[in-house]
Amino acid sequence: MHATPKTTASNPAGKLLYAQSGGVTAVINATAAAVIETCRRHKLTAYAARNGILGALREDLIDTTREPSAAIRALAHTPGGAFGSCRVKLKSLDEDRARYERLIEVFRAHDIRWFLYNGGNDSADTALKLSKLGKAMDYDVRCIGVPKTVDNDLAVTDCCPGFGSVAKYTAVSLRECALDVVSMMDTSTKVFVMEVMGRHAGWIAASAGLAGEGRDDAPHVILFPELVFDTGAFLQRVKETVARVGCCVVAASEGIKYADGRFVADAHAGTDAFGHTQLGGVAPALAGMVRDQLKLKTHWAMPDYLQRSARHIASKTDLEQAQAVGKAAVEYALAGRNAVMPVIKRTSDSPYRWKIEMAKLDQVANREKKLPRSFIAKDGFHITASARKYLAPLIRGEAPPPYGKGGLPKYVTLENAAVKKKLPAFAA
Amino acid sequence: MHATPKTTASNPAGKLLYAQSGGVTAVINATAAAVIETCRRHKLTAYAARNGILGALREDLIDTTREPSAAIRALAHTPGGAFGSCRVKLKSLDEDRARYERLIEVFRAHDIRWFLYNGGNDSADTALKLSKLGKAMDYDVRCIGVPKTVDNDLAVTDCCPGFGSVAKYTAVSLRECALDVVSMMDTSTKVFVMEVMGRHAGWIAASAGLAGEGRDDAPHVILFPELVFDTGAFLQRVKETVARVGCCVVAASEGIKYADGRFVADAHAGTDAFGHTQLGGVAPALAGMVRDQLKLKTHWAMPDYLQRSARHIASKTDLEQAQAVGKAAVEYALAGRNAVMPVIKRTSDSPYRWKIEMAKLDQVANREKKLPRSFIAKDGFHITASARKYLAPLIRGEAPPPYGKGGLPKYVTLENAAVKKKLPAFAA
Repeated sequence: MHATPKTTASNPAGKLLYAQSGGVTAVINATAAAVIETCRRHKLTAYAARNGILGALREDLIDTTREPSAAIRALAHTPGGAFGSCRVKLKSLDEDRARYERLIEVFRAHDIRWFLYNGGNDSADTALKLSKLGKAMDYDVRCIGVPKTVDNDLAVTDCCPGFGSVAKYTAVSLRECALDVVSMMDTSTKVFVMEVMGRHAGWIAASAGLAGEGRDDAPHVILFPELVFDTGAFLQRVKETVARVGCCVVAASEGIKYADGRFVADAHAGTDAFGHTQLGGVAPALAGMVRDQLKLKTHWAMPDYLQRSARHIASKTDLEQAQAVGKAAVEYALAGRNAVMPVIKRTSDSPYRWKIEMAKLDQVANREKKLPRSFIAKDGFHITASARKYLAPLIRGEAPPPYGKGGLPKYVTLENAAVKKKLPAFAA
Repeated sequence: MHATPKTTASNPAGKLLYAQSGGVTAVINATAAAVIETCRRHKLTAYAARNGILGALREDLIDTTREPSAAIRALAHTPGGAFGSCRVKLKSLDEDRARYERLIEVFRAHDIRWFLYNGGNDSADTALKLSKLGKAMDYDVRCIGVPKTVDNDLAVTDCCPGFGSVAKYTAVSLRECALDVVSMMDTSTKVFVMEVMGRHAGWIAASAGLAGEGRDDAPHVILFPELVFDTGAFLQRVKETVARVGCCVVAASEGIKYADGRFVADAHAGTDAFGHTQLGGVAPALAGMVRDQLKLKTHWAMPDYLQRSARHIASKTDLEQAQAVGKAAVEYALAGRNAVMPVIKRTSDSPYRWKIEMAKLDQVANREKKLPRSFIAKDGFHITASARKYLAPLIRGEAPPPYGKGGLPKYVTLENAAVKKKLPAFAA
């Protein structure tokens, strides 16, 4: 770890290429805006790769200097990935040599001297590989990772930009629908299941726990992917809760598994009357169990992409961190750093304070930070006080987008003008 | 229709009983707050029935005069039903005589002279029956219906309080997740399906149409319960859209049916590996078809109760209308009206203007207002300009709840102090 370096470079030679990678978030564009605005302050030309690393491979580059300042400012409140993202993981240097060479060729053709890759574990790995490649191929390019993921599963950083907003969406939505369920429980739904993202790590499921405070507040049951799902124990807990409270609200991670390792969602996927596979889901599977075994009326929700694109209910803390990592990444680049990533360091819980530090990409790449056991209650069905202490500051503060007269948020779509190609096509 | 009457009564003898009925909404409590505040201004004691009409039958009444003003004010930004609601429909006077007699007995015991029933079609019917019963049983009680339903399917009124907010939630969420889908469509999800409420009427599905403006903006396909679902035509439309736009975002009503009358959701419910019924859903059914037939990657969302409880993204227009009907209902009551309901009358589209008028309950009860064919595009897959003109004003304006320092909305839970019972128990 090092302190943020002072940037002295100005109007530097060469260009910076920024790319978005993996699942997008409510605030990844806020990081993009900070990257571009910081480049503008340093008179550095920023290109963006269309659809992540694919754009770099295809030489499909976007000239961000052609976007008006107002459009870049508006990025900070626009969800999705403004330049397009992709789910493509580069293999090892040996296995994917042609693609790595192509990247260097594209960088060389456009005088790209800095590459900022905004993503999760896999993207940190790609940036790390590229950071080594420049030297091997005698082309000076610095690679900086920029953290982003709703899953909050990156190593080293205290939290990941993107997570605080999905956590806020989850806690707010759960608190709201619990009020609905309680209103009707006397004659209608007794058990409500909300499925949340996080296939391998239970951070989002844990954030649902912030919706309530007392023992009988919703959610009454949280199911984490870190623990084995036990049908009997789950149903017993639901039954007891309904008997005591009158209803039971469940927040379940999409990634919960049976003891044999099968995902609950997959195990309950069936076949419909047409012989087609029924798309699974943890929420309908759990609701089905409750209905069949406990004979209780159920409802379930699956917000899916709604949760990670809900910029309208973004966390201000998350937004500020998304902007801070974007700014720091450019400053690291200009200070000549390579193979590093700006991360968030928590310096105090109460009052909540954080700062940006520099981490080495090889400490981040390909690692996965799961929910620690100390964050999960002994019985496995809720979060602990330690988890609350960690999670609570991340959903603090509101940062609503501006709304138009029509009542919809004013989200921006960029022009995304293409940079003229200089190379032959390449099958990415 | 009549103009709003002037209220002259003050400190009247007798009490007013308010009850919430059917599915709750993001703003039904705003109506409740307006009812209670208007009663307070007129020195009229307002009771509330716990869990709707059941509370009246069980003599389970709440004394709202014991709630501090701040709590009542906070109701205006709290979703769910603060006094509890229920799904109970009274049958005809002959079939349900014992219950109607019990209601009059409870009213008489507590000197309840006005009954305000806040609900949809069924509730208007119950209020209508009760309005006639007083005379038959020689007890002077006036019954006023107060409109509420996310489905927007009430007759006479231009729109229903509760609808504007779910419409805004739907349009905003769809716009946000469409930005997510577009970002990733090159290598990930090509078709995204969002299921919305509205089993018999396509108003909520139609509101999704406000998310986009141009031909290629999401949603690209809307499926309405008013039209027969044709698998071939749907898949063809999805295929064409993906070819042209690169992705296809679908908004589908939960109530779409095949030509033989079966709900699509039910037709595709299957059996899982455990032999349990798989809970159906339109979104997974449609996503399954697309995946099986078109071999395209799909994702789907089912917000369920999240959509009708999302007070955090409520429409200001909707909120104001919810408050206005609550206030008018009390004024009608005090003016001696019986068997009426305050409804919303649109007086101008542009600028949007509305006022409250009085409708007779027998014009509202048991009728259902479906989406007119002129609001659905010729090809059946989108809304028309007429629909936009009607829908657009209903989602205008923001009315966010206050947030606590912790980043969650400050929703109120009332004390709901019980009124002392005077009668023997009754099996409701």
